[in-house]
Amino acid sequence: MTIELEIVQDWRVFATDHSLAGVALSGDDTVVSWSDGRETAFHRFFLRDNCPCSQCYLPLTREQLFEVTDAPADLAVHSAAISAAGDLIIGWTDGHASRYAPGWLRAHAPDAQSRAERHAARAQPFIWGREYADALQSFDYGDIMADDGALWTWLSALKSSGLTLIRNVPVEEEALLGPIARISHLRETNFGRVFDVKSKPRADSAAYTSVNLPAHTDLPTRELQPGVQFLHCLQNEATGGESVFVDGFAIGEAMRKHHPGEFATITTTPMAFWNRDDRTDYRWSAPAIALNDEGDLDEVRFANFLRGPIDAPAEKMGDIYAALRLFQAMTRDPKYFIERRLAPGDMWAFDNRRVMHARREFDPQTGSRHLQGAYVDRDEINSRWRVLSRQLGEPC
Amino acid sequence: MTIELEIVQDWRVFATDHSLAGVALSGDDTVVSWSDGRETAFHRFFLRDNCPCSQCYLPLTREQLFEVTDAPADLAVHSAAISAAGDLIIGWTDGHASRYAPGWLRAHAPDAQSRAERHAARAQPFIWGREYADALQSFDYGDIMADDGALWTWLSALKSSGLTLIRNVPVEEEALLGPIARISHLRETNFGRVFDVKSKPRADSAAYTSVNLPAHTDLPTRELQPGVQFLHCLQNEATGGESVFVDGFAIGEAMRKHHPGEFATITTTPMAFWNRDDRTDYRWSAPAIALNDEGDLDEVRFANFLRGPIDAPAEKMGDIYAALRLFQAMTRDPKYFIERRLAPGDMWAFDNRRVMHARREFDPQTGSRHLQGAYVDRDEINSRWRVLSRQLGEPC
Repeated sequence: MTIELEIVQDWRVFATDHSLAGVALSGDDTVVSWSDGRETAFHRFFLRDNCPCSQCYLPLTREQLFEVTDAPADLAVHSAAISAAGDLIIGWTDGHASRYAPGWLRAHAPDAQSRAERHAARAQPFIWGREYADALQSFDYGDIMADDGALWTWLSALKSSGLTLIRNVPVEEEALLGPIARISHLRETNFGRVFDVKSKPRADSAAYTSVNLPAHTDLPTRELQPGVQFLHCLQNEATGGESVFVDGFAIGEAMRKHHPGEFATITTTPMAFWNRDDRTDYRWSAPAIALNDEGDLDEVRFANFLRGPIDAPAEKMGDIYAALRLFQAMTRDPKYFIERRLAPGDMWAFDNRRVMHARREFDPQTGSRHLQGAYVDRDEINSRWRVLSRQLGEPC
Repeated sequence: MTIELEIVQDWRVFATDHSLAGVALSGDDTVVSWSDGRETAFHRFFLRDNCPCSQCYLPLTREQLFEVTDAPADLAVHSAAISAAGDLIIGWTDGHASRYAPGWLRAHAPDAQSRAERHAARAQPFIWGREYADALQSFDYGDIMADDGALWTWLSALKSSGLTLIRNVPVEEEALLGPIARISHLRETNFGRVFDVKSKPRADSAAYTSVNLPAHTDLPTRELQPGVQFLHCLQNEATGGESVFVDGFAIGEAMRKHHPGEFATITTTPMAFWNRDDRTDYRWSAPAIALNDEGDLDEVRFANFLRGPIDAPAEKMGDIYAALRLFQAMTRDPKYFIERRLAPGDMWAFDNRRVMHARREFDPQTGSRHLQGAYVDRDEINSRWRVLSRQLGEPC
């Protein structure tokens, strides 16, 4: 029997180190054995769901047309074989046929060992503290604007450390939109597409006054805090106003290690954050440090000046305040922060959902201070980084 | 002793039904008794944290200046009393003094009964199925644009049912931006600030073809799916192309009740959603139905044509596919959907994180079909609704 099956190629690449050595049927599963001795059981619906033929996938959009609900409940594998080219060929009891490349199967294998390998291969964040002040690399605006390799290097650093400095950005209003356009669109908020950080006579946020702003993330009042913040210095003549950055993941990992009780509390207690304005009323509650499903640090959410009353059972208040006070004290500990004075043309890009920023009080009588800011979500950074990685031949 | 304490007023209003009947100190707690006999224990740090005086809050922005970390670990209540005006007056061992209105204390009381009352008072979604086709209320564009009361009524319906129809929207490009501007800014995506749904020769998404689009949410590939989708009909002359809407919360609640095993699986199994494009590479994984911390339905996330391979242990695949097939079959069950043909000037506004939409296949040879769409996040809807409620004297 000759089977001609057109495979609709996905954009994802996969390693082709392992070939199929054998195949056997067992109940609901098709069990393949690999050239390195590993075995993987693929459930009949998993295989049917992922049939890559051009009837099941629309070649134009590479989007799936087949829906697994369309398969009868008793659909079974009628025949399973390895083709001369080394692909797995499945014949189904309803007459459909499917072909799977061994690299694709290995890349998505649901056996415990393959899943553990995928998990272990994920990028880990680079955690930093005060010592990073000396090591902090800066990137050049011209390089980022002109060269995809430089763009990829910068975005890689931003994803890993959460804090990067770009120099030689033109000292012009909205110049920060240049690097943003190299990524994607920006994330608009009620403060505008671009926001101007300077002292305003009728401030609706502490950011627009000259007071000390303690370490915080921006817009913790939103369900999704903006992912990456760009902060471009146009003028900085006033006395004071230094920028301070704290890696919230460093504090989170230190709490996990040295204060496990407080870490458990801070990662599970929702904290309310509110805005207080006559035109808007944003509210959100979430833990100050959030973990993902695997227990990795995922997000820091904290601005003391926006915090609402804690809504928790009375008997837990003591533990909650102990954890909150520890967390906040750590954000002020010099071992965790770096402090810099911005010069016109400097631009910070930092992960607003990880790196807290603070501003020292400044004296508006001593000179002008004007920063412009904008946000881009993590999704956009990740998407652009993956496409660049694809184009540059880097794994992603 | 006369205490003069300026209280910085928050924007939040609270009921003033209950007065303070007594106060006593007990360890870390200040225990107040209420006119209805209830007792509430307030932890010393909770009270100190929420001192509303003008030293602790910046009156200009109503943002907190005091940070609870600034309080010494051994800070204690030195004196607690009820003032002639009925407020709770606390004198602290470090010399600070605080005054709390009884309405504020009751509104944030951490005793179990008060917390349960707050929980029970939260708005519940209005769940619907096919019968809603007849009951579906429509709103008038002119009213929404001119009248804050009409705007509030529409947004209330949108928040409750997740699906609303607006009529008499001008049949002009970008007319959908009018109602959006009545709310706030929009949520831009890589498909633009406004997207045009029509068949394109080089489609990068099934939305831009004429094929049947099964029930789905838009952009499940993003960490935060867009909250509310606006879909404005400019032309609809082609045969076919009817709009179908499914309340995903109705399916979720039916699964919870009648298929608890599948419900447990579908609410806890991350599903991967990918885009497949040469310029972008978005990926996100989350359950098709997500619950919030209290176990309420929070979000539906599903587009079969964007789904990636399920990454789960081999031994769980059978249960996962059983749950997925059931969920998908329910989205096709006529008892859960309503179907309408849009006329030019009609505009749907629906909660894209709850209501799945589908489009029947149409024949592009039989006439033009052109819809314009845009997104606004739930945060913006909620914020605008709260401010309107405040202005109109409605509870929020």
